[in-house]
Amino acid sequence: MKQNWLQKPEWSWNRSEGEPTYVHNWVRPLKEIEGIPDLILYGAPISRSSISVSGASLYPSEFRRMWKGFATYNLDEDVDLSPHRIADAGDVAMHTTDIMLSHQRIQEATASLVTEYAQTVTCMIGGDHSTTACSVRGIKDAFPNETIGILQLDTHLDVRDPAELGPANGTPIRQLIDGGIVKGEHVINIGLHGYFNAKPLIDYAKEHQIQMVTLKQARKHGVVETIQQALKNLSTKVDRVYVTVDMDVLDISMAPGVPASTPGGMTATELFDALLEIGKHKGVKHIDFVCLDPSKDSSVAETVKTGVYAWLQFVTGRVCQKTT
Amino acid sequence: MKQNWLQKPEWSWNRSEGEPTYVHNWVRPLKEIEGIPDLILYGAPISRSSISVSGASLYPSEFRRMWKGFATYNLDEDVDLSPHRIADAGDVAMHTTDIMLSHQRIQEATASLVTEYAQTVTCMIGGDHSTTACSVRGIKDAFPNETIGILQLDTHLDVRDPAELGPANGTPIRQLIDGGIVKGEHVINIGLHGYFNAKPLIDYAKEHQIQMVTLKQARKHGVVETIQQALKNLSTKVDRVYVTVDMDVLDISMAPGVPASTPGGMTATELFDALLEIGKHKGVKHIDFVCLDPSKDSSVAETVKTGVYAWLQFVTGRVCQKTT
Amino acid sequence: MKQNWLQKPEWSWNRSEGEPTYVHNWVRPLKEIEGIPDLILYGAPISRSSISVSGASLYPSEFRRMWKGFATYNLDEDVDLSPHRIADAGDVAMHTTDIMLSHQRIQEATASLVTEYAQTVTCMIGGDHSTTACSVRGIKDAFPNETIGILQLDTHLDVRDPAELGPANGTPIRQLIDGGIVKGEHVINIGLHGYFNAKPLIDYAKEHQIQMVTLKQARKHGVVETIQQALKNLSTKVDRVYVTVDMDVLDISMAPGVPASTPGGMTATELFDALLEIGKHKGVKHIDFVCLDPSKDSSVAETVKTGVYAWLQFVTGRVCQKTT
Amino acid sequence: MKQNWLQKPEWSWNRSEGEPTYVHNWVRPLKEIEGIPDLILYGAPISRSSISVSGASLYPSEFRRMWKGFATYNLDEDVDLSPHRIADAGDVAMHTTDIMLSHQRIQEATASLVTEYAQTVTCMIGGDHSTTACSVRGIKDAFPNETIGILQLDTHLDVRDPAELGPANGTPIRQLIDGGIVKGEHVINIGLHGYFNAKPLIDYAKEHQIQMVTLKQARKHGVVETIQQALKNLSTKVDRVYVTVDMDVLDISMAPGVPASTPGGMTATELFDALLEIGKHKGVKHIDFVCLDPSKDSSVAETVKTGVYAWLQFVTGRVCQKTT
Amino acid sequence: MKQNWLQKPEWSWNRSEGEPTYVHNWVRPLKEIEGIPDLILYGAPISRSSISVSGASLYPSEFRRMWKGFATYNLDEDVDLSPHRIADAGDVAMHTTDIMLSHQRIQEATASLVTEYAQTVTCMIGGDHSTTACSVRGIKDAFPNETIGILQLDTHLDVRDPAELGPANGTPIRQLIDGGIVKGEHVINIGLHGYFNAKPLIDYAKEHQIQMVTLKQARKHGVVETIQQALKNLSTKVDRVYVTVDMDVLDISMAPGVPASTPGGMTATELFDALLEIGKHKGVKHIDFVCLDPSKDSSVAETVKTGVYAWLQFVTGRVCQKTT
Amino acid sequence: MKQNWLQKPEWSWNRSEGEPTYVHNWVRPLKEIEGIPDLILYGAPISRSSISVSGASLYPSEFRRMWKGFATYNLDEDVDLSPHRIADAGDVAMHTTDIMLSHQRIQEATASLVTEYAQTVTCMIGGDHSTTACSVRGIKDAFPNETIGILQLDTHLDVRDPAELGPANGTPIRQLIDGGIVKGEHVINIGLHGYFNAKPLIDYAKEHQIQMVTLKQARKHGVVETIQQALKNLSTKVDRVYVTVDMDVLDISMAPGVPASTPGGMTATELFDALLEIGKHKGVKHIDFVCLDPSKDSSVAETVKTGVYAWLQFVTGRVCQKTT
Repeated sequence: MKQNWLQKPEWSWNRSEGEPTYVHNWVRPLKEIEGIPDLILYGAPISRSSISVSGASLYPSEFRRMWKGFATYNLDEDVDLSPHRIADAGDVAMHTTDIMLSHQRIQEATASLVTEYAQTVTCMIGGDHSTTACSVRGIKDAFPNETIGILQLDTHLDVRDPAELGPANGTPIRQLIDGGIVKGEHVINIGLHGYFNAKPLIDYAKEHQIQMVTLKQARKHGVVETIQQALKNLSTKVDRVYVTVDMDVLDISMAPGVPASTPGGMTATELFDALLEIGKHKGVKHIDFVCLDPSKDSSVAETVKTGVYAWLQFVTGRVCQKTT
Repeated sequence: MKQNWLQKPEWSWNRSEGEPTYVHNWVRPLKEIEGIPDLILYGAPISRSSISVSGASLYPSEFRRMWKGFATYNLDEDVDLSPHRIADAGDVAMHTTDIMLSHQRIQEATASLVTEYAQTVTCMIGGDHSTTACSVRGIKDAFPNETIGILQLDTHLDVRDPAELGPANGTPIRQLIDGGIVKGEHVINIGLHGYFNAKPLIDYAKEHQIQMVTLKQARKHGVVETIQQALKNLSTKVDRVYVTVDMDVLDISMAPGVPASTPGGMTATELFDALLEIGKHKGVKHIDFVCLDPSKDSSVAETVKTGVYAWLQFVTGRVCQKTT
Repeated sequence: MKQNWLQKPEWSWNRSEGEPTYVHNWVRPLKEIEGIPDLILYGAPISRSSISVSGASLYPSEFRRMWKGFATYNLDEDVDLSPHRIADAGDVAMHTTDIMLSHQRIQEATASLVTEYAQTVTCMIGGDHSTTACSVRGIKDAFPNETIGILQLDTHLDVRDPAELGPANGTPIRQLIDGGIVKGEHVINIGLHGYFNAKPLIDYAKEHQIQMVTLKQARKHGVVETIQQALKNLSTKVDRVYVTVDMDVLDISMAPGVPASTPGGMTATELFDALLEIGKHKGVKHIDFVCLDPSKDSSVAETVKTGVYAWLQFVTGRVCQKTT
Repeated sequence: MKQNWLQKPEWSWNRSEGEPTYVHNWVRPLKEIEGIPDLILYGAPISRSSISVSGASLYPSEFRRMWKGFATYNLDEDVDLSPHRIADAGDVAMHTTDIMLSHQRIQEATASLVTEYAQTVTCMIGGDHSTTACSVRGIKDAFPNETIGILQLDTHLDVRDPAELGPANGTPIRQLIDGGIVKGEHVINIGLHGYFNAKPLIDYAKEHQIQMVTLKQARKHGVVETIQQALKNLSTKVDRVYVTVDMDVLDISMAPGVPASTPGGMTATELFDALLEIGKHKGVKHIDFVCLDPSKDSSVAETVKTGVYAWLQFVTGRVCQKTT
Repeated sequence: MKQNWLQKPEWSWNRSEGEPTYVHNWVRPLKEIEGIPDLILYGAPISRSSISVSGASLYPSEFRRMWKGFATYNLDEDVDLSPHRIADAGDVAMHTTDIMLSHQRIQEATASLVTEYAQTVTCMIGGDHSTTACSVRGIKDAFPNETIGILQLDTHLDVRDPAELGPANGTPIRQLIDGGIVKGEHVINIGLHGYFNAKPLIDYAKEHQIQMVTLKQARKHGVVETIQQALKNLSTKVDRVYVTVDMDVLDISMAPGVPASTPGGMTATELFDALLEIGKHKGVKHIDFVCLDPSKDSSVAETVKTGVYAWLQFVTGRVCQKTT
Repeated sequence: MKQNWLQKPEWSWNRSEGEPTYVHNWVRPLKEIEGIPDLILYGAPISRSSISVSGASLYPSEFRRMWKGFATYNLDEDVDLSPHRIADAGDVAMHTTDIMLSHQRIQEATASLVTEYAQTVTCMIGGDHSTTACSVRGIKDAFPNETIGILQLDTHLDVRDPAELGPANGTPIRQLIDGGIVKGEHVINIGLHGYFNAKPLIDYAKEHQIQMVTLKQARKHGVVETIQQALKNLSTKVDRVYVTVDMDVLDISMAPGVPASTPGGMTATELFDALLEIGKHKGVKHIDFVCLDPSKDSSVAETVKTGVYAWLQFVTGRVCQKTT
């Protein structure tokens, strides 16, 4: 009953009966999977909560459409992903005009999923960044006694004031901190750079002890090492780690489909390395990918392809984790 | 006090002190106008109420930005528009995430304007088509004893069910009929064609006696004659006529900036002729232009330019009306 | 056994169980239809036979993808199409590199369909114009004793020499005439204009008595009247009429997705009127739509939408024919 | 010696030795033609004199590049153009930074050509509209005792003040009138519409008795009839008629490659009809086509193709004229 | 009197009265600033002097329009820029068709500014690269007894021959060397690579002892170290250092808005590091950014954003310099 | 007689008589060169053999058109390329619809060239990757007793099964291995990464001992060092080395003109470094560049320019090789 906001994934039609050598033959609808899946995917297709016009609501379906072009074998690590069981729980049903109601549904759907599949890693595909506040609250609902830490890959702090904007896409981290769901000191943001956070926001972050790691610092120490250290650090302090990847962390030259991306951002290769490392870390129980607007993407869907690749890096990390 | 939702129009900065030979030197902020203006313009910059992703919220500002390219002289009619006094009341302030609240503000702002400037024609620049329901309700609030008729130029009936979608952009006419604000028999839709209204919607329209005039019929009788007849017809039945121009009435080849436009639609020239005629008719007290998404427009802003031209045709009609 | 080249249509996945108020809920896979359908649709997804680079092979799937946006009610004629039974036989399986083999399969698949469903109108979605030669040959294989006439809506004569090019997209009419399948005098081309047929091709057409009706002439007499007269004329001479619509007949301003379209071409409205008339004519047993390359289309899929609309006009004509 | 500003046309490389069935095999470099050609083409590739950024300087070469797609047979008139002798005199050599010098060279090159080939129609391909003032002055230099009349197809009057702008693209007609080269009453502008000429410019036009024919008037009387009457009218008053076609006369939906085109403009078909008529008229000795910026054109070069088509209509008119 | 070519900056309209946390609330019109500003910005909006078609004249206004998206806090250096006083002197007034006159005005306006504000760093926003010759000459006019050195970040040497082209955008460095304004040995070009300078130009550079540092060499030694060394080197030899940043130094994949950018160019990150270092150096008194054509930029204004970011890096360097 | 499939290169028209300081004045038609050229270029303009729609057939002509923008001086190496003699043998004549015949002609033309110019390095410009199988077979025909090794820069293994697809673009390496032309152990693929080769293909590669070097490995050891080692390794085992550069090896952010490019690919700079190194190696006798589709390229032809640059790096390597 709890999971009623999750709709049947449409993509399943084009799944052939052959070997799971490509992603669309490998991922399976949640209901068709026997036993406990290794990873559950679900979509939160909302972006009318975005401050500026956004089509990020289209990402979950485009994400699934473009994965047909990806094989289930990672050549870099020389590892076959196909034995890993990926389930698709479909999209949370959104209301056309009632944003608060839609947000509530994401929270409830997440709570249901993480309760029923407590051993399984969950991966939410947004939607704009407001969805992260919903899913983290859902996890808190399911595990009220656990502390949650957030590793955020983002160009922005996303601590704008919900009192002014409502639960919009610039506010999720502040919603969670002000709402007592997550402590500021349990948030680590990697990828900050340049001139994209106004001083009052930085003041808020400092006041709440959000750990800010600039991209410059991360590069100096090595992106992979920075991720390792951040996760190690978080793991000692919290019960479960939630990773949120705001795709605007990518450099603007590599992310035509992320209107909020900026010059001086992370390269796709750095993001891929980071996600492989994140996937390898056992404390990470949840991940989301948000703010990718396929309607703005290049004609060859460069950004959506980068998004699928990034997700597969995380999955590769999980597989490597299991086998080691 | 009532008008507090209306924000100062930003465009005023680029008004030079010279002669009003171009639109941006002619239109003036409402507060700077002495006496009663002939036409008041205001923006309703919301499109997160749109069923599909829309940037129509950007239209009011683009509309004002592009009018710099238009002179205040109509060569076809050989008439100088500059003596006509156009006031810009700015945009209604929208909330970032509370759609109902934003809609309420449009209603209130409209009620305030039409109450204070009862002799003046008002022109609302949307926004998606949900804004029409708000503004008509605002007029009804101001003049509760008057019957309102609607002349709708549209490819769609826009009578989808708000019970399902909330007050979204496919529902305004049904909101007004079901809400008892406007009678179905007082709605005339011109521009319908092809395969863009499902049978249940047509059934609703027939049941409520909405007058449907297909584009084919309009062309057969002459677009101008059809408009004349429709306005004459409406005027005998209602106290004031509200004209709503859904820019998706335009043919898809001429409206790259209107995602819902279709093949087989109205040509820009037909729309211009219609609006000149509409402007000439005294019973028309209110007009709006909605559903134009400048973020989808061609690189030369073809659709926004067409929108400004269309509005000027209406204004030319007013001027001709006054002089005859 | 004969129909083995036809593949199961992929689109069927997104067919809901509701009322057939939209095209994707109305068209049904051929095998699921009981009794004899009114119209059978099949795709011929090949364009590597095109002289210049073409992605017209993608049209059958895009055609089916975009029809979701179309209702099954024609407002102009005030007629509900949903009782008309449309079957989708899927696409003919193409070989990756053997063009002649692919052509042979189109011919065989067509022959099978028209044999098994002799009372049903068939509609082939190309592919480039080379497919027309294949399907007409398939029909001749099925009905060797019947004479076939062709009504061609096209900017080009398509009588280039297969001896030079092989069975490429510029050659289908000449293949059929030189191959004795169709007589030149049984071919009527409407839509010719301007400077897009070199003198030797015109000489060939004149020599073989192809009836050339320029767009200018058609407009002078009325496009609908010209179509009526052409079909009446053909019907008296042949046993069955095949209509081939090369989408390059459309004006270049309305057909971004047809690389061969030209200035001075037919408007979409003229094409729609023509197809309604063609649909009404009993002698028309077969139709195809070719040379639309969705990979070149505008971002709002203007041309594919025009293609679906055009096809629905033909269907509307069939419905009107039956009811009169 | 005089013609030294004219450069060898680059296009000649791709001329095959075959029959002149396509334009690129038909047009010949001026120096290779024996006897007197029927029409001489030359380019004036300058647009740094344009008020707004323009790449119209690229038009002469793109015009010649795209003509490969055009046959030398006009199907509408059923006439073979290939016996008509077209010479290409190449482009006038422009200076990189000295606009006045470049203008002077266009004037001199034109004077040389029209002197040497007094019986031949000349056709200049611009360039922005400033080039028209140069070429008309060149003609006046060659024939100082003849009066010149101008038939202008244009959305704008192009009578802005050179005292303010220098000899920029908005000023040519005023340059010629104020310079005593052409009388205002010998200028007829067809195609004016809407809101694209400020009142002071209209006042100038009225004061100098420029004949303004709006597109609306032309459509009412018939575009062809309007052209006929205008040429008849001009011919009785002047010794030679110069036709200038500002491609911004075209409707914005048909002219992506003309940044100054507007909604409500002429259709391509109307322009083609007009040019056929113009070509038929004996008094027309010179023509130019200006203000088409290929760098802004659509990916299928819609506007350049329209430009070539328009030019061929004029040529067809010449051929018809000769044969009648 | 001297500054009469500088026009009031239009952008000032959208400056709110709030805290200077974003650039548009921080930069102030020159006339409104009390005391001596730290940096003066001015625009030189000309690109009709460009060899190929260019809209770089639009950069000054787009630069100012896009800076609204930038905060005044640099997260990498953890430094608040807002106490630094930035003045905007507006744009130099350009003539529409007289390039030499426009160039003269840039020279005079620069001379006036650097004379009146001798302690202030000036920053010119071009325009094409011809403007650099003008501004350096202006500085020389103001300080005839000082030697000027140039640090040039550029893919090209820009030493083409003004005798052939006039003062076009390929010639500024040669204008200055041949004109005796700057010595060749006082010019250091960093960023050269590949195949974009013909041998005669390289010969000229060698002959005049221009120091050519290829990007490959810079990367080998470290871009920052290379900049440091170059500035140290220059400072010992000249009285004031002028830095000119031709945005075509950027790699083509990161600079859609710079038509002359090439493969193998500098990354945005390298440019940002370089400018931070340049800003830190006391000897640098003047800087310009040229050759960015916003009309060619991507739909998300990637290159203009990169340009604003680059400029802010320079400003950050100044702030760091002051505080150390 | 043998070389009859090679057509005269069209580009030669725009070769000026001046110094060979730019590529188009340097490369010469094969027939005009006296003595033995250092490098022969020829085109294989076919892409209808591509599995997905491709315009790679247009690359040879675009490659030659864009080289006008490149000087013949390499600044990084400070070396003048112009003494190196480059011959252009034109394009192999392709049949419009018979793919096997076209492939046969590429094979024959290659055999002829390498036989007649045995001392000259050949460089084929594709076309899709199917052309590599043809050219390698042609070389084998010419030198049946020599073993050929292949260095492949590619994101894919290209060992799909020709039994299923025919000789399509995914199959060339398998065609050569299964056909006994090249041994699997003599193939080294550098550039593999991510998820773009399904497990069965990797199994095939492992079974046939194709050496797979991932991009990650190459970066770890240094791209240049990896190339050096690969060529050294190959040279000890084979008689001649053939290098095939599938441009899809490039990262998707740098290769809009290569539809098969992927995220995580090689940077242009890495490719340039690799090709310089390859050019320096004496064992390399043949090279090709394939799968670049200019019709998909960005408006500034980023990818074609990168292709020309890459080719010039190879040529620079040859020049360096000769001089050392």
